[in-house]
Amino acid sequence: MTAELIDGKQIASEIRAEVAESALDLTERGTRPGLAAVLVGDDPASQVYVRMKKRACEEAGIYAPDMHLPADISQSELLDRVEQLNEDPKIHGILVQLPLPDPLDEAEVMLRVRPEKDVDGFHPVNVGRMVSGDMDAFRPATPAGIQELLKRIDCDPQGKHVVVMGRSNIVGRPVAEILSQKQPWANATVTLAHSRTHDMGEIGRLGDILIVAIGRADFVTPDMVKPGAVVIDVGVNRVDDPTREKGYRLVGDVEFDGVREVASWITPVPGGVGPMTIAMLLKNTIKAAGRFAA
Amino acid sequence: MTAELIDGKQIASEIRAEVAESALDLTERGTRPGLAAVLVGDDPASQVYVRMKKRACEEAGIYAPDMHLPADISQSELLDRVEQLNEDPKIHGILVQLPLPDPLDEAEVMLRVRPEKDVDGFHPVNVGRMVSGDMDAFRPATPAGIQELLKRIDCDPQGKHVVVMGRSNIVGRPVAEILSQKQPWANATVTLAHSRTHDMGEIGRLGDILIVAIGRADFVTPDMVKPGAVVIDVGVNRVDDPTREKGYRLVGDVEFDGVREVASWITPVPGGVGPMTIAMLLKNTIKAAGRFAA
Repeated sequence: MTAELIDGKQIASEIRAEVAESALDLTERGTRPGLAAVLVGDDPASQVYVRMKKRACEEAGIYAPDMHLPADISQSELLDRVEQLNEDPKIHGILVQLPLPDPLDEAEVMLRVRPEKDVDGFHPVNVGRMVSGDMDAFRPATPAGIQELLKRIDCDPQGKHVVVMGRSNIVGRPVAEILSQKQPWANATVTLAHSRTHDMGEIGRLGDILIVAIGRADFVTPDMVKPGAVVIDVGVNRVDDPTREKGYRLVGDVEFDGVREVASWITPVPGGVGPMTIAMLLKNTIKAAGRFAA
Repeated sequence: MTAELIDGKQIASEIRAEVAESALDLTERGTRPGLAAVLVGDDPASQVYVRMKKRACEEAGIYAPDMHLPADISQSELLDRVEQLNEDPKIHGILVQLPLPDPLDEAEVMLRVRPEKDVDGFHPVNVGRMVSGDMDAFRPATPAGIQELLKRIDCDPQGKHVVVMGRSNIVGRPVAEILSQKQPWANATVTLAHSRTHDMGEIGRLGDILIVAIGRADFVTPDMVKPGAVVIDVGVNRVDDPTREKGYRLVGDVEFDGVREVASWITPVPGGVGPMTIAMLLKNTIKAAGRFAA
């Protein structure tokens, strides 16, 4: 068997088109959706992420003002800035790009974002609501994007065994939560595995759906995958490659070529989960603006 | 092999003795710990639970005033009452006994309890903090009690496979969260199974530690248990028994006599997990009062 590819790029562009339609509709009804992507300092990767998010907003007709703050901003100034955004009626979603430069206190900043505008879904109130099965809470973008990928390839997790490798607060843990809820496109038996798991191969082979977000290049080998499984690879790792102009290439956490011969569906890296994250962020922004307009 | 019994009654009484010591110490330093157990209406089971909690408080030297409100109280009156308790410096912990009589809105009431006094650990802020690995958040009493039982029999979940059957917001889901955290007495690979799980026996046999909170008498049979597993039975079910004076007896979710021959440790019902719940509630109250005193 050679697995079919899950084309995250294509699916994300469909979602972004849907978002653009909703944004237009809201704008015509008097509420142009607005997202504040706050960038503090000059971390190059953060700059790239924020630029991608802003560009995606612009393409979708979402207002996304420049929010670039100096690296030496004080904690209280940053909190004041967040408060202003909390009060700003043109802004419906606020995201603070992490990591923040030292010595800023990330947890305190996240807590200050009003839960109604927390489109990243990282505020404890939204995490708590999500865990309690409240479907109105904002869900973090990457886990929501994974669920959406499964939906678009018509793979219903209900009754299946989902194995999640990696327990980060932004991917592994919330996707395990979401897919174990008694909800449509969820309702799976879920195993959460991680660095301390005894025999990762044995656990991996349990998964009808295998979601890998462990951050190690080519960590999952074919023998760790159940034949016919749907494999979702969240990893993005640089490996040296002298044949490339940049001197490296990006690979996932899954040994793609080998696992492709075992799985039924697989996400490529890049072009799998990655593009979904921004698409789902935009979707959350529309949701926030829609509630504001209602 | 015949499993050893995990004597929850004995362990809980040890914890309650520790709590009484801490309460005395806090009282001598000027802060007598106080718990408001709010009972609304006359549900007989709720009355019993609240009475048990109040009695346990009194035995431990914790102030526990009567908080019996009429079944026909309005939502806004109940919320006002909660606000008063939020402001009351003699009260460090607030619990609202569920279920509330119709048409009161439980979710709104829970949200009104100040997270710093939410000793039940049900407020979304505390759920979110717990999920994010914040060890300062209040943990719901039954899951925390299960972790404590494992500790007291010196069974470290780290690296083991914990299987949780049942995904309620008060037991299954939070215990899965707690035991998968990168923390001492946790750090396990965790599988969360439930009513939609395809083959519960197959899943059950994966568990080095099996935690059952599914609410069906004798649901887990010996063939569903891995030989040598530690079995924690959270269920409390009435089954008819004409030989008893009351006409029934209480059994767990685990077929005790059979599973005892397979497991290495097992909790009896009653006398296993049950007594731990109140003990951990008292412990949370001490924690709340201790922070207030600090």
